[in-house]
Amino acid sequence: MSELEVFWGSGSQPAWAVLLTLEVKRVPYTSHLLSFSAGEHKTPEFLRLNPRHKVPVIKDGEFVLNESQAILAYLDRKFPEPPLFGRDAAETGLVWRAISEFSNYLLPTLLEHVVRPIYNGKVEEHRQRIEEHMAVVHAELQNYEATLRTRPWLVGSALSAADLLIFPYFMSLMRAATRPIAEGLKLGILPLNRVYPHLAAWVARIEALPGYDKTFPPHWRA
Amino acid sequence: MSELEVFWGSGSQPAWAVLLTLEVKRVPYTSHLLSFSAGEHKTPEFLRLNPRHKVPVIKDGEFVLNESQAILAYLDRKFPEPPLFGRDAAETGLVWRAISEFSNYLLPTLLEHVVRPIYNGKVEEHRQRIEEHMAVVHAELQNYEATLRTRPWLVGSALSAADLLIFPYFMSLMRAATRPIAEGLKLGILPLNRVYPHLAAWVARIEALPGYDKTFPPHWRA
Repeated sequence: MSELEVFWGSGSQPAWAVLLTLEVKRVPYTSHLLSFSAGEHKTPEFLRLNPRHKVPVIKDGEFVLNESQAILAYLDRKFPEPPLFGRDAAETGLVWRAISEFSNYLLPTLLEHVVRPIYNGKVEEHRQRIEEHMAVVHAELQNYEATLRTRPWLVGSALSAADLLIFPYFMSLMRAATRPIAEGLKLGILPLNRVYPHLAAWVARIEALPGYDKTFPPHWRA
Repeated sequence: MSELEVFWGSGSQPAWAVLLTLEVKRVPYTSHLLSFSAGEHKTPEFLRLNPRHKVPVIKDGEFVLNESQAILAYLDRKFPEPPLFGRDAAETGLVWRAISEFSNYLLPTLLEHVVRPIYNGKVEEHRQRIEEHMAVVHAELQNYEATLRTRPWLVGSALSAADLLIFPYFMSLMRAATRPIAEGLKLGILPLNRVYPHLAAWVARIEALPGYDKTFPPHWRA
């Protein structure tokens, strides 16, 4: 087996970004879908690949790599087309800025204070905290909406690593927002095509990428 | 003024990483040292450069960029020598992995639970929290120490962006640990050359870089 191997888990946002990248670059790969509930990310075999027992991990021949941003940077250098980190220094800087700003100013709030409590069914006890933290989320989503009003992708004129890394987290937010348990929450994000029409169009553009269906979290279909 | 401009603040770790990068790449620059206490990062002029009022920011002609990792990626593409993100795909992946792992697993604990309470003089009320969180810090420092036992830099055989981005935060930890107020704390990090001799040698190697003195936080000398 000389194909690139990907170890991932259903619903892992960073793993989803790696799968999307492989599809966009049309890199053939062998998929290893790990079951978190069965502890397959904590087996001795997997811990040899990543002692932090986190997905995604790729294995390319003897080369093993974890951390999604690092994997995207690796894939972009090894398989340059289409370039996902810009075609010149300025584009490269802007793609990484979008990734850093997302990681620093949106991701922690989004996961910790909105998505996780809803996924965990802790809506009642955290209602106020969730609704308050949505202000931070909306401030960043408004930036995206303003950007996407003038162009199809988050940075520059082409699809970039910023789109692919941010999209899975945004989908987690949408999934949380549409859960029955979230029905009474004032998240202010539904219906998406009314509240953020350009973000909705951006989601549709990513969903239309060739190979997208293969990357969709299997257990989300259930 | 056609030189690249850098807006920074004394003691800002990400700004320090940018200054180090410019020195390593021998890029001439115009320095704008902002006074946080005078609010110079919140003037209308600076907010036009970065609405998030954070340093570092660079201005290269009409191109403006914030976020240290993005700035390093930009500088590396515009001024390729010496390469700070690897010479091939594998090195690129490993450099970004080191940066991601630092950002995800060490930085939040280091800043929030160790450096900040000491800087803020809140040692007594947070003594237990600080000492407990040092376990996380030591786990990561032990990884670095093991790496540096076999080679001079954190990734591969050459100085990389990982060294330059991580170093300023490590220096903040050392500064916190050597403050009089921290004297009774069990941080387990002093004397550094006994506890982590290879990390101490790594610090000395970075301190020996040409131009290092220009990057040292001015108010730390006081």
